[in-house]
Amino acid sequence: MVQYQDAVLDRVFAALSDPTRRHVLESLGAGSLAVSELAAPHGMSLPGFLKHLRVLEEAGLIARTKEGRVVSCELSAAPMQQAATWMQRYEKFWAENRAAKK
Amino acid sequence: MVQYQDAVLDRVFAALSDPTRRHVLESLGAGSLAVSELAAPHGMSLPGFLKHLRVLEEAGLIARTKEGRVVSCELSAAPMQQAATWMQRYEKFWAENRAAKK
Repeated sequence: MVQYQDAVLDRVFAALSDPTRRHVLESLGAGSLAVSELAAPHGMSLPGFLKHLRVLEEAGLIARTKEGRVVSCELSAAPMQQAATWMQRYEKFWAENRAAKK
Repeated sequence: MVQYQDAVLDRVFAALSDPTRRHVLESLGAGSLAVSELAAPHGMSLPGFLKHLRVLEEAGLIARTKEGRVVSCELSAAPMQQAATWMQRYEKFWAENRAAKK
């Protein structure tokens, strides 16, 4: 049986429950980006946007790096994989459950 | 490009961000269960437990049925599949991102 860390799953799923945060993760799929580049499409105040980044960081989904004055973010995949594994496992049950009803 | 409904994803991921609610979904994998059977392993007050069920119901992840006096719950798979599709799509990016760093 796969063991999940409940605290990790709690934070990852909570982090994913917001469209701004999901969009940040999507944007980082192609590689690391400066915070200013990440923030630009969202049209919100920088402090508001930084709060979203902090939630993603605390969930372990992104990491920040600093080069000179530029702070960049990159994906950090391990916690997301725990969440994906949880979903895949139970997706199988749901698929069987639906098939049985037909 | 797959279109996701942000409001659905918001509610599904928020519903998954709690261990009690994830456990309810796991328990329902094998088939529908009475609310009393679902509540038993959690050792919490019934009103507290019913709040969790309501969150799952509002996310569209479970449906309630009533037979006589017995209220049962069963899985309702469609919203979860949207969330799983979102994760699968971005999991690919993360895997590529990690492979590229090696």
